[in-house]
This record gives sequence, structure tokens and C-alpha cells, in this order.
Amino acid sequence: MSATGPQFERAAILGVGLIGGSVAAALRSRSMARQVVGLDPRDGQAALQLGLVDAVVTSLHDAVKGADLVVLAAPVAGNAALLRGLGELPAGTLADGVAITDVSSTKCSIIAAARESLGLLLPRFVPAHPIAGSERSGAAAASATLFDNAMVLLCPDEASAPDATDTVEAMWQMIGARTGRMAAAHHDELFATVSHWPHAVAFALAAAVGQGPLADDARRYSGAGLRDTTRVGGSSPELWADILLDNRDASLRAARSFSQEVAAIERALSDGNRPALVEALSRGARWRRSL
Amino acid sequence: MSATGPQFERAAILGVGLIGGSVAAALRSRSMARQVVGLDPRDGQAALQLGLVDAVVTSLHDAVKGADLVVLAAPVAGNAALLRGLGELPAGTLADGVAITDVSSTKCSIIAAARESLGLLLPRFVPAHPIAGSERSGAAAASATLFDNAMVLLCPDEASAPDATDTVEAMWQMIGARTGRMAAAHHDELFATVSHWPHAVAFALAAAVGQGPLADDARRYSGAGLRDTTRVGGSSPELWADILLDNRDASLRAARSFSQEVAAIERALSDGNRPALVEALSRGARWRRSL
Repeated sequence: MSATGPQFERAAILGVGLIGGSVAAALRSRSMARQVVGLDPRDGQAALQLGLVDAVVTSLHDAVKGADLVVLAAPVAGNAALLRGLGELPAGTLADGVAITDVSSTKCSIIAAARESLGLLLPRFVPAHPIAGSERSGAAAASATLFDNAMVLLCPDEASAPDATDTVEAMWQMIGARTGRMAAAHHDELFATVSHWPHAVAFALAAAVGQGPLADDARRYSGAGLRDTTRVGGSSPELWADILLDNRDASLRAARSFSQEVAAIERALSDGNRPALVEALSRGARWRRSL
Repeated sequence: MSATGPQFERAAILGVGLIGGSVAAALRSRSMARQVVGLDPRDGQAALQLGLVDAVVTSLHDAVKGADLVVLAAPVAGNAALLRGLGELPAGTLADGVAITDVSSTKCSIIAAARESLGLLLPRFVPAHPIAGSERSGAAAASATLFDNAMVLLCPDEASAPDATDTVEAMWQMIGARTGRMAAAHHDELFATVSHWPHAVAFALAAAVGQGPLADDARRYSGAGLRDTTRVGGSSPELWADILLDNRDASLRAARSFSQEVAAIERALSDGNRPALVEALSRGARWRRSL
């Protein structure tokens, strides 16, 4: 990277939906790469028309040839396939000193896939998780400012080269994010608790409201509370099914903690036990007010 | 009511926290009452200093003497006590043609209390539920614009006089709200589903996140999703315990519907059954996207 001019010669963004498209747009808007190339059979053309990328190509080889920055931004399962594809490329396809990062919401499985597939490229891979997004998806929802002040967690593997980690960290910071580092196992346990299972809760609550005879009245008369509580329940079911399955054990542990709290509330309510109900609700209120 | 000048001679707002204080402020800001008097041992002085009311008094009699509008805006249990107090006042304390309304989140119990307590005043009482508020509470959170475009549901009792219902409906509309009417039993079933139990879910989710060893990291790294999903979990535990207890049977029915949806997600996840998981999540997403 140089202090003047573009930091990257060629950035390959593999998947240009909400997150990948926003990375591409942010790189372009800051002139951080001489060329930003997108690969995405579904969102590619839209991303090109929206000006998120300089060009779209249709093969992995064409996308990453000569790239010094590669961002894996497909859904979890797609990223694993892309890693296999990168591992199978002829030596020298990517630029020397390439930095490879990803945007998956889970980190243990992508690291396992990288170890299995990347071979000599493994030290260039620095897993990342941008804590940004919305219940919308696709290139049309992408924005060059999505990462402004967002937190991006890096979970470098033991095999990650320090210079690759520095390059990836600097890239996320230059497109507006704050960065932190943590071990992948801790990351996945944490995000099962604060994101993956809470998404399941929002889906379940929306389903319970929307399944019954009150669905229409609920649509008409619900207030800001229910809209907020269920907001992420409007996200993509396929995307979140894959995230939950990818982080299954930790998500099920988070589910059990949640069910214990629900059961405590239900029991106190059923018993008409006001002190126990106030105490159960207070456990949540204390933490929420500390946010 | 007259088309010119204040619509009310004296509005008595019994409880000037978030909701009552906002009614008072909205009446004042639109010059809808010659005098707006508040009664509230806790928030009264703050409401006066904030200019939400013209005066605060310390007895029910002083508050409602000559009032042609009375708004019960204490928590649920407090409103029942205020109804008893109103029923015990000497005849002629309130103005002829007085309209009495309330702001409770549950409607069956307040109607039962009114039938028991109000005596000859019963036809003047028109129960209402403004679907507005926030996780904040108290006079300091009140705002003259809280009801702008908010929905206020009226649940007139069989005994409510049509002219009282019209007066109350017009009052809510003049302070910015849209209004609707429904039977109290339907109201309580609906709000158990769209509000009371969803609050319990938000409290439970915040408790599950905030109880474990990940509480600090969760505070630091959680994103907008968890903040929204748990927002109403920062509300008053005492207030919501009373609402849930007041609407216990309907809330427990809503809890059961919710638990069935959670169980379906957990089972599909535990089984690694992606089609079943996508279907379970889709049930929620379909309704949420229709909002």
C-alpha cells in the first residue's frame, strides 16, 4: 500500500449484494483501488448499473487475476465454495502480497474451509465480520457509507500473515469502520448470543403474531415497539437459516439461556407472582439500560 | 365544545408522566383548555416546571372540581383507585357533560373497575388506549407532539354516552391522533399479542444476553439488530409486570403461540433440517415484510 494514490491496484469483490456492494462502493468513493471488479451472477449487473463496481466479470479467474485485495462477500456456504476456487487457481494468478478477507457472520467454519482449501494462500486470508447491515439485502440496498463508524471484528487465524492482517485492518478502517480483534471461537459464541439467536427470536415473534386470526389487526394497530422488536424478522430466511446452521451449537446454547428467561417470566405471570415477575423483567431492563 | 376558543374549561390530568404529561402538553400547546390541572405526587412538580400543566394540586377533589375533561393517566392499578375516588365525590363536583377517558394499555379491567365504582358517572367514561410511548417514562419524557399521527383506540362501554364518546374522540383527534374503535375484549386479546407479550420477549432476550459471561462483550459489540430487538426491554419492569398481570390470560395465550414458533425453529436447527428451518423463519418474514 502507498500513502498516495490508490491503496490497491485491483480489488475483487466476490458477491456484490448489500455487504459486498457496500465494500465496493466505499472503495470506489474513496478512490482506494485502481479498479474494483465484481463477481455475482445475481447482483452483478445491478451493481454495475448502480456504479458500485467498475466492471463485472463472470468467472472467478477473471475476477481475481492480478488482484491485490479479494473480499469474499457471498453468503456463508458460497464463501466456502469461493475459497475452494481460490485454492485451485494456478500459482501466480493473484498479485504477490494479496490480502484476502471475508464478511461472514460466523468465523469458525470459514477458517476451517480456508485451512482445507487455500493451501499456500492461507497466510493471506484474514477473516473479518463487519457488524453492519440491515434487514434489506441485494445490491440496491448497498451504500458507500454503510461502514461509517461500524465495528469490524477481525479473527486472524494462527496462519494469517501479520502484514496481511495489517492490510485488511487498514482497508476496513479506510472505508470508515472501527476494528477489533478476537479469537474465532469467542466470536462465534458471542454472535450466537447477540445476533444469531436474537434473529431467530424476531422471526418467531413475527410468526406468532402473523399466523393467528389477529394478523390483520396486528398489522394495522401494532406500534413502534413491535416494529422494532420484529424488525430483523423481515430479513432473508435463507440467509439466516444458513447462519444459524453454521453456528448451530452456540446458537442452541443461546436458545436455552433465552428459554430459561422466558420460562421464568411465564411462570411468574401464570402464578400471579408480581415480585418474581418484576425481578425477571428487571434482569433484562438492567442490561438493556446499560447499552 | 365550541368551534372557537378553548374546547374545555378545565382539563384534569390525573397522572402527568410520559403519557398524561404529553396529553397535558398537547392540550396546552393547542390552547384546547382554559386550564390544565395536574395531579401526580411523583411527577407533579416536574410537570409544572416543564410547563406541561398550568397548575398542580394534591387532592383528587381539587383536581377535578368543575372539570369538563378528566384523563386517567396513572398506571393500571392507580387508575382503578382514581375511578373509586371519582365515584365517591359529591354529586356536582364535576362539570355537567364531563368526559372522562383513560390511557391504560388494557381495557377490560378498567371497564370492570368503572362499572364497579363510577355509579352515575359511568356514562361519561370512554376508555381509550393511545398506541404511543417509548421505553422512557416520567414527565421529563413527555412531549406535546407524542400523539401526532399516533393511533388511539377507543373501547366505549355499553354504558358510555354517545356524546361523551364523541367528545373524547374529538379530543384525541385534536391533539394529533387518528382514532379507531373496537370492543374491549378484542382489544385486550390483540394487545397481548402485539404488545404485552412482545415486551416480555424483549425483556427475556435482554436478560439472556446480559446475564452470562458475555454481557460486557455483548454491550460492546452488539449491533443495531439487538438494540432494536431489545429496545422495549429497557422499559419499566414494574409498569410492564402490572400490564402483563392485568391481561394475564391473553398474554399467556400469546406466550404459547410464541413458544410454538420458537420450538419449531429450535427443532429444525437441532435436527440440521434446513428446509424446515427456512420454512419456520419464512412464516415470520412474510408477516413482518407485510408491515
